Parts: sequence; structure tokens; C-alpha cells
Amino acid sequence: MTSETAAAADAVRADAASVLAAAADAAPALAAMPPRDRARALVAAAEALLAAADELVPLAMAETGLTEPRLRGEIKRTAVQLKLFAEVAAAGEFLDVRLDAADPDFVLGPRPDLRRYLVPLGPVLNFAASNFPFAFSVAGGDTASALAAGCPVVVKAHPGHPRLSDRTAEVLNTALPAGALGVVHGQDEGVAALKDERIAAASFTGSLAGGQALAAIAAARPRPIPFYGELGSLNPVIVTPDALAERASGIADGFAASVSGSAGQLCTKPGLLFVPAGLPAPEAFASVAPHRLLHQGIADGYARRRDEVLGTPGVTVVVEGGVTPDGVTPTLVETDLATLLEHRETLLQEAFGPLSIVVRYTPGEPLGEALTELVEGSLTAGVHVGAGEDSPWLHELVSALRALAGRVLFNGWPTGVAVTPAMQHGGPFPATTNPTITSVGTAAIGRFLRPVVYQDCPPSLLPEPLRDDNPWHVPQHRSPAGESSGWGSLTA
Amino acid sequence: MTSETAAAADAVRADAASVLAAAADAAPALAAMPPRDRARALVAAAEALLAAADELVPLAMAETGLTEPRLRGEIKRTAVQLKLFAEVAAAGEFLDVRLDAADPDFVLGPRPDLRRYLVPLGPVLNFAASNFPFAFSVAGGDTASALAAGCPVVVKAHPGHPRLSDRTAEVLNTALPAGALGVVHGQDEGVAALKDERIAAASFTGSLAGGQALAAIAAARPRPIPFYGELGSLNPVIVTPDALAERASGIADGFAASVSGSAGQLCTKPGLLFVPAGLPAPEAFASVAPHRLLHQGIADGYARRRDEVLGTPGVTVVVEGGVTPDGVTPTLVETDLATLLEHRETLLQEAFGPLSIVVRYTPGEPLGEALTELVEGSLTAGVHVGAGEDSPWLHELVSALRALAGRVLFNGWPTGVAVTPAMQHGGPFPATTNPTITSVGTAAIGRFLRPVVYQDCPPSLLPEPLRDDNPWHVPQHRSPAGESSGWGSLTA
Repeated sequence: MTSETAAAADAVRADAASVLAAAADAAPALAAMPPRDRARALVAAAEALLAAADELVPLAMAETGLTEPRLRGEIKRTAVQLKLFAEVAAAGEFLDVRLDAADPDFVLGPRPDLRRYLVPLGPVLNFAASNFPFAFSVAGGDTASALAAGCPVVVKAHPGHPRLSDRTAEVLNTALPAGALGVVHGQDEGVAALKDERIAAASFTGSLAGGQALAAIAAARPRPIPFYGELGSLNPVIVTPDALAERASGIADGFAASVSGSAGQLCTKPGLLFVPAGLPAPEAFASVAPHRLLHQGIADGYARRRDEVLGTPGVTVVVEGGVTPDGVTPTLVETDLATLLEHRETLLQEAFGPLSIVVRYTPGEPLGEALTELVEGSLTAGVHVGAGEDSPWLHELVSALRALAGRVLFNGWPTGVAVTPAMQHGGPFPATTNPTITSVGTAAIGRFLRPVVYQDCPPSLLPEPLRDDNPWHVPQHRSPAGESSGWGSLTA
Repeated sequence: MTSETAAAADAVRADAASVLAAAADAAPALAAMPPRDRARALVAAAEALLAAADELVPLAMAETGLTEPRLRGEIKRTAVQLKLFAEVAAAGEFLDVRLDAADPDFVLGPRPDLRRYLVPLGPVLNFAASNFPFAFSVAGGDTASALAAGCPVVVKAHPGHPRLSDRTAEVLNTALPAGALGVVHGQDEGVAALKDERIAAASFTGSLAGGQALAAIAAARPRPIPFYGELGSLNPVIVTPDALAERASGIADGFAASVSGSAGQLCTKPGLLFVPAGLPAPEAFASVAPHRLLHQGIADGYARRRDEVLGTPGVTVVVEGGVTPDGVTPTLVETDLATLLEHRETLLQEAFGPLSIVVRYTPGEPLGEALTELVEGSLTAGVHVGAGEDSPWLHELVSALRALAGRVLFNGWPTGVAVTPAMQHGGPFPATTNPTITSVGTAAIGRFLRPVVYQDCPPSLLPEPLRDDNPWHVPQHRSPAGESSGWGSLTA
């Protein structure tokens, strides 16, 4: 290393150090900020983001190769997501305030006054994704939910869009409290931040290998911290015989659009389609224009995975597609359950790009059991059913899908994740490192909070959400004295 | 190993295998059981436990050395806890049902019908504690909350009370569905169960070293699972100058009772007492009768820790106590903040037994800062304040206590944990491996559930809690179409 590059590396490290220090300094004030004020800051940040769209979208196009319509939609989605978490903050239900009155006559002896709520964990480190430069990056859902919770955020920028990451942070910081949002660059800086004792939790969206490595680092700290990784997902979709008989070509078109959108670089891309007979209309796949992949690492990985799949005995090519200097075009192959089982190590790994595998099954065979045996935890699992279709076979299949995924969807495609209170984006390992949480939807805020209870606290020392005069106007759930002994009605 | 002991070991392993198989077999039926039926089973189990008290309490006394009044109280508490989780199950709020209506006019484009609830994770492995043979063992809170969630439970019995563990399971199993509760014995069997792919989550109450070792095993599985460990805790308590002036002898008596109860073998024992001047009345400590420790391993570990503390320069003995063949008597030592800082490796480790350290501080010095620097995550942190006392110093101190603990208590002692909706029993590492959860109180059920959302599901395929006709009569939280665009009022 020359002295010049060493000096540059030191400067980067100094920059990362100042970002971490700023986040730690900002934590107490952000935690003490009334949620409605946090909400106003998030709404202002969303509006600043939208106002900068004409600058940020072209920057994102240049750095990621994603299309303008896709990125215009994504920046709007990202702003809506910031506003949704503003709503969550303002509503105050996320604090889960529980006030249990003192009870001198409690069945186990006098019970103290207990007042519980959720407090922010502290500075959150967010490893941004490559494939959503807005919605899962600096301004994305992890950032929005952590800020709403009252945690400062340090984003480890994805190297696929470094300039966009910096500019996005600058735009948001016109609206956010000082120190609430910072950006660091570089793998070494990211790992150093993950080991830094000021970081209280981390989130990650990316590859299985990357997520597992970071999860191990988080767990090996002297003080381990919560690590929320969203890793790989195969997103199996099953087409029943009735559904195929009713609308084969519509299903084939929808499948092609879902596999090839954003060049298949989506964690919810359907990687497996189970059909009882041949799927018509491969034309929908064959007519997709070439699309640049996000960066060279993804392009190399995709080419390798595609070669492996195409070279597996028992796999036949439906649409060959390919990898060219102009980008990739979709590849569709077909096989059967026996081949999938025999070559599971090759065929049942995620291909991050526009490749999917059609699997023939025999109607009536216990497909639910086969899926349970074959497919690991997934973000989503889908089924296309006929109108009014209902059978024990179908119920068993749906139960199997529920066991392996966080979202079970019907007559649709897994790509395109609605941002709403009920959304669940997470699933059994390896979909996420922790199946009890979600990274999309309002419940995502719960990742960055921990409960604290005040016992017999004098009124003047209570935090605002726990006070009887409730100055923050948050929902308070009260358990009066004597209430928790009404279980007589349950006696057998 | 002789062939006889080898055969015995094989028999034990065969037994553990059958327990795991039974739990896995029971999982689907328990998950499908309406929560009110689960609740009835839990109430019946609680009543069976109470009905067997005259048999179980003497067995517990013989195996643990704990006193009859303590164990009679504990078995009652354990039954109340089972009934409390029956209430939680019956109320159905734990399912967190969220129904988001389809919205064709959603700001980001048509939104599907989304229906989300929480489903049981599957079989839970519960490593029982030594020090609560009822309340944190076979019939304890981890078991009650997992069963209420719909998860079968495999308890790794603590070797300190093996016969009680088996008998407790037999008693509960007169009321529980087949396979819902099983017991395995032995460290090897426990580790094997933790690695078994049928186990979906694990809970643990015990030592820091043991919990860290098991957490690492859970994380290193091919499919990692949630691991909830409750490890060590120092439970600092601060006495303000005003409080000491008002009621020094009452504080001294309460402190002695809290440190010496159950021979100090409680995770909430106050291990550090910060006082601005000498504490009166060491007689309360000196008059405590000898108490047998739970088992030889704890006795050996306690003797070692006590020797280390007594041998530390700068530590003076207030009440020497000791370890005799009849049991232990409390040991109280005194030191200052500087010594605590200098010998933190020795003095700031938990001593599992009746030893506590009194630390002198200087009134007005920034004690909150010192605590933040010195004390790691703790289950509890307490402060005794004067009547009407209020000052910036006190507010800062309380903020520091909140940062390091899950329960902040005032004018009381941390031992004796109320089982109520608002209770929080958990804290930053090393108090628990995951600061976002609790192992006592109704929120403990959340550890064993994961969210699943159904998207555009035909009515006949919906699970009961998500159906519009709501056959389980559970609370359903609805977001109508058009509702999530009302953030205009937040616009800056």
C-alpha cells in the first residue's frame, strides 16, 4: 500500500468513526423525542426524497442499470413507506404501553404497580441491499422502521450504488435530526461497525453467505446484538390441475413477468413453478429484452448458477436465454420431482437473476409432503387454484406452504410486496435469520425496540408514555387490580 | 464404560428419541387446537399440579434443599402462571390478527387482500433452571407460554431435581394432549435435542457460560433456530442520600432479606448496593440461619467466587458469613467505586449465592455515568429515593438504570417477580441473549410464534382466525381500504 492510499484508507476509517460517534450522540435525544415529532421528521424526509426524484432516479439508473419506470415506482414506494412508519410512530401503539395497577389482594400476595413500554435499542446498523437502491437501501424500510422506533441509523452502503447512497442521505438529512442517519462505505468499515459496541442491532438484506457471515460476527461480539438478516428464498408456486385447465396462458404470462421483472433480481422471484402438465406460451419468456444486471459480482454469480442448472442431468431447456454483453435474457428449464430430489444441492439454490425451474408433478400425489421434504424456508409460497376449488389435497398443500413460508399467496405472483400493516416479509431459515420478525410492513418496527418495566415508580420520575396524564397521548392498556383472577370460567 | 452402563445410556437415548418424535407428531394437532381448548387444558394442568402439591413439594425439598414455605409458594405461583397463560390463549389477542382489505385505489397501485396472524413455531426445547424447580422448570413459564402458543414442549430436566421433573410431567400429562410435554435427561441428550431439526426454538435459564455455549450450538445448526437464554445479572440497587437519611434501617433489613432469601440463589438477587454512607444494621445479615445450596456444583462455584471477592484488595468484610457442611450464611463486603473499576473482572461477576457488595459513592458525583461504564446488562436495576425527591441528578440516574436493565424498580427489592401482563424479565446482554423478549409475564408467549400472511386467499382455504365469520372469536384488527393514506395531517 502506498502512503497515499494508506492515507485515503485512514480518511475513510476516520469518516466511519465520526458517523458512529454521531449516531451514538444522537441516540438519547432521538429516544426522548415524542413519537409525533419523529413522525413529522419522517414525513418531511419522505417529501424531500420525492422532491429530489429528478436528481436521484438518473443517478440510480446509472449505478444500477434498473429502468426509469421501475425506479420512479420504487422511490414513490419508499416515500410512502417512510410516511407509513410516520403513521406508526404517531399512533403510538408500537410502544405497547401496559399499566398494571398495584393489587394488594393479588392471589400471590401484594402486587406492585407495573408500567411497561418499549424503548429504542440504540444505534442500528443497516447493511443495504443491491437490488432496491431506494426501498431496501439508505431510505428504505429498515431505516424508516428504526427511525420510527427512535433509533439512529448507520447505513453500510451497498457498493453497487455508492454515490446514490451518499446523495440520498444528504437529502434525508435536510429533514432529520442531526446524527439520526449516516452512511459508511466498504466491507471492512461495515464489519468494524458491526463489532462496534455502540451499535445495538443490525439488519441485512442480501445473500445467504453474506448474511450468515455477518450473523456470526454479531453473535460473537463480547455483547451479542440482535441481527436481522433477510437472505435467500426460492418462492415456490404451485399450479393445480383446475387452475391450469382454466387459465394456462394467463398463468404463463404472469409467471414470465414475475421471473423477468428487474431481471429476476428480486428476493421474491418465483424460482420454482410446480405444474401438473406442460406450461404453454414460452413466448412470453422468449420475447423479454436484455437487461443489465446490477453489478459484475451478480452477473458472474448468475452465469455460474445458470451453467450449473443447465448442466444438470434430467433438466431440459424450455427457453435458453443467455448472458450477453447487453445483459441477460430469461432462462426457463423443466424437470420432475425425482430429479429435483436427486440434484437438490444444485437445483434448490437461489439463482439471483431471470432463471426459473418448472417442475412437473403427478396430479393427486402428496405434493405438500414433497415440498416439505425438498424446499427450505422461503419468504413466500404461492398456489394457483381453480374457481371454487376445495379438496383435502389442497388443504394439505396449503398447510405445507404455511409451514415453509411467511407469506402464502393465491392466484398471484410473489414479486411486488405491498407495504401495509398486515404484510409479512420474512420466513423460516434461510429466508430470514429470525422467523419471528418481518422487514416489510408496520410490524418491522418491533425489531428495534426492547421492553422496560417501571415498578412502583414515583410519578415525577415516570417517562411520558407511562404517566397517568399521558402527555404524549399514546394508547395505554390498563389491567386494573383484581382483573387477572377471572379464569374461573375456564375451569374444566 | 461397562456393557451394562452402555445399555443404560442407549435406553436413555432411545427415550429421548421417543420424546422428540412424540413432540413432532403432536405439533400439527396442537397448532390446530382452538386457543380456548388449549386454555382449558392449561387450567386443568394447573389444577392437577396443585392437587399433587403434597407429593411434589416434599420431593422438591429433598432434591433442592429449598424450604417448604418457599416451595409451597412457588408451586402456587406456577399454577397461577399456567392459568395466566390460559387466559392469554383464550383471549386470542396473542394471535395479532391483522386484516387489510384489498384496496384497488391504493396510492402504490392495487393492494391485495392481506390477512396476517401468528402461528406456533413448532416443538420448543426448554432447558430448565436449578433454582426454581416449579416456576422455571417442567411446569414453568417457558413451558406455559410455549403450550399457550400452540407449541409442544420438550424439557431438558435440570440434574438437580430429576425425579421431581419426571413426576411433574406425569402430573401435567394427565391434563395435556398427548405428546405436548416430554422430559429428557442428561447434558448429551439436551445438546442432541438442541441440534435435532424437529426442534424449532429453545429457551434456557441458567449460567452465562452454559447459556453462551447453547446459544452457539443453536446458531451453528444447518438451520439456526431462535434461542432465548436468561443468563447472569448483577441487579444493582442505588440508595440516595435522602432515602438513607429517611429509612436506613428499613433499607438494611430489606436488603438482607433480598440477598439471603433462597440462599441468594435467585437471578434477581441484588449483587451490588450503592450507598452514600455506611449501611447500618449488619445484624440482619449476621442472624440468617445456614441454608443448603441447590447442588454441589453451585456450592463449589459459590465458594470460589466468595474467595475471589474476599481476596480482592480494597474490599473490606462487613459480615463474613461462610460455607459450612450445614450450608451457607450470607457474606457482605464493602468497597468503593475506584476499587470496583480497578477489579471489575473479579467484582463485577455474578456470585450465585448469598453474597453482595456494598459500594460507597460520593453524593452528587455522576453515578449514572459510573454505572453505565461499570455494569453490564442486568435483569433489574433499583433505586431507593426519598419522599418527593426529584433532581436532575436523579433523573440522569434513572435514565442510566433504564439503559442497563429490563426492570427499573423503586423503593423495593428485585427478588420476587410478579407474573402480570406488564412484567418484563429480560434485559441487555448478558441478562438475556435477546433484549427484545421477556421470559416472565404474558408477553413471553411472543417468543414461540411467527407471523404468516395469507394474500388473496379464497375463503374456504383460510385458517379459522383469519375468516370473516371468525369461528374462534378472536380479536381481528381491520385496516379498511383507503385508510392508510391519512398522513396528510402529519405534513410539516
